Amino acid sequence: MKCRRCGKRAVIDIKAHHTAFCRDCFILYVHRQVRRAIAEYRMFSREDKILVCVSGGKDSLALWDILLSLGYECHGLHLDLGIDGYSERSRMKAVEFAQKRGCTLRVISMEEMGIPVPKLAKKSRRPECSVCGTVKRHFFNKAALEGGYKVVATGHNLDDEAARLLGNILHWQWEYLAKQRPVLPPVSDLLVRKVEPLCRLSERESAAYAILTGIDYILEECPMSKGATSIRYKHALNILEDSMPGAKMSFYTGFIKNLPRLSRAWEDLHGAIGEDSGGSFSRCSECGSASFTDPCNFCRLTIESGLRPR
Amino acid sequence: MKCRRCGKRAVIDIKAHHTAFCRDCFILYVHRQVRRAIAEYRMFSREDKILVCVSGGKDSLALWDILLSLGYECHGLHLDLGIDGYSERSRMKAVEFAQKRGCTLRVISMEEMGIPVPKLAKKSRRPECSVCGTVKRHFFNKAALEGGYKVVATGHNLDDEAARLLGNILHWQWEYLAKQRPVLPPVSDLLVRKVEPLCRLSERESAAYAILTGIDYILEECPMSKGATSIRYKHALNILEDSMPGAKMSFYTGFIKNLPRLSRAWEDLHGAIGEDSGGSFSRCSECGSASFTDPCNFCRLTIESGLRPR
Repeated sequence: MKCRRCGKRAVIDIKAHHTAFCRDCFILYVHRQVRRAIAEYRMFSREDKILVCVSGGKDSLALWDILLSLGYECHGLHLDLGIDGYSERSRMKAVEFAQKRGCTLRVISMEEMGIPVPKLAKKSRRPECSVCGTVKRHFFNKAALEGGYKVVATGHNLDDEAARLLGNILHWQWEYLAKQRPVLPPVSDLLVRKVEPLCRLSERESAAYAILTGIDYILEECPMSKGATSIRYKHALNILEDSMPGAKMSFYTGFIKNLPRLSRAWEDLHGAIGEDSGGSFSRCSECGSASFTDPCNFCRLTIESGLRPR
Repeated sequence: MKCRRCGKRAVIDIKAHHTAFCRDCFILYVHRQVRRAIAEYRMFSREDKILVCVSGGKDSLALWDILLSLGYECHGLHLDLGIDGYSERSRMKAVEFAQKRGCTLRVISMEEMGIPVPKLAKKSRRPECSVCGTVKRHFFNKAALEGGYKVVATGHNLDDEAARLLGNILHWQWEYLAKQRPVLPPVSDLLVRKVEPLCRLSERESAAYAILTGIDYILEECPMSKGATSIRYKHALNILEDSMPGAKMSFYTGFIKNLPRLSRAWEDLHGAIGEDSGGSFSRCSECGSASFTDPCNFCRLTIESGLRPR
């Protein structure tokens, strides 16, 4: 197998694009895919200061590395979720990456704030992954506003997005479908823009990038994610991808292309997006953050669980 | 495991409905599901004479059996596709069923007409499954018009329809999505109504019905269908169904519910359905059958292959 670009020995084949690359050309390919996603979906410009959410896993560290390589001004944010052992090990990977590259990383610890995710989930009797999502959304936006960042970037890859899409379509969850896109625009000055620059890269490509560029990331999966439905959606999609290379990409990009029309169909049925969330957009009277409900989802969660952040 | 209806020993569990049945109650359940599909989608009434397309497989023979049990006036139509060996064995199953029940079956032989499907596919260099579909659509409608039937019923089950839907959605084939429904209305007096009364029954349920009612059907799969993409879609859906019983049903019925809105979104984009097919609806100048194109797809296929029906 030879590199399609330079003819050297290839280290990876990419069936979805009918191609194969050596290490150096693969890195160029990855950078090109990310540049293309940024341009195609107008994610941000050279002038924007970007906050990258880094968990310590392959995707978010690869994302940070790529954005730095492409010359963007971006700083890291790590949420220590307070998951026994796993969180310490994840945090270490993020901290080590930042030290090695000499870049700024802010760490917010749920343990230190008295709201570790497993405890919040237990006390509120909500599913862990749902609690984790609420906590992340809250602190990602809060930290971005505090630091003056215009954009929050996360490491969601094509497999994540295609799996999420399959789940939403399997149950025809129009309100989620209408909101699933690689760029969520800012809302006034309360919610910053959210972007997913890896949305054109598969999980395999993202892992290969981390390995080939020597990124030291946490290999273990979150212990709370066992049995998560997203894993099943990914499995089903991988079966299709195996026999139809490019299926995931065509599924996801075809959806994004048709999203405006689907959103309109949804609005026909249920009214404008957001109206279902219980009123118009305002501030949470508890924490002052942007929310469709009062208190916001995060404050409701911490109130329910009896664990307010210190 | 006990029957949820009568408490006797159950022979089948149906996870999607959180239930289990003995033989007799399962048969009642199947009849109820078919009655529900007929009523919900207004497929036909007691007054309609129905032409059931029977291949000799479990689904179509089960369908014929069920419609007879429910008291509908229905006759069978079998197309002998001319697939060496397989077609003879399939035909035999259909003929034996009809004889046993003392009901009318019309057989149309592609071999005798000089247009066996494998030869048509080879000569026209088209995929076999696509040729087979064109031939079936042509003769199903032709036979219905000749016999004065208002409705053509086929044995497509929930797995067939969910797999077809997944394929259409994976590639966002709006023109097919807009036309996928359990009832296709008649078009003037040239195209009869087409219905799929088994659309609420899974493949497993349809097979169980055939076995438990003693229907002798052909077990082998069509030799031309090897490697068909529909098999992969079914496999992926079965993985999801295994961990989320009811997923297929929710996927398919949710789609049908939202179809009018999706169709509208599609029309927004491409114009009214049918316009893409090359003009308005009329008669084929070769065979006189209803068609959006002239010649119709069937005549184009036979002209291309140089094999005109005798």
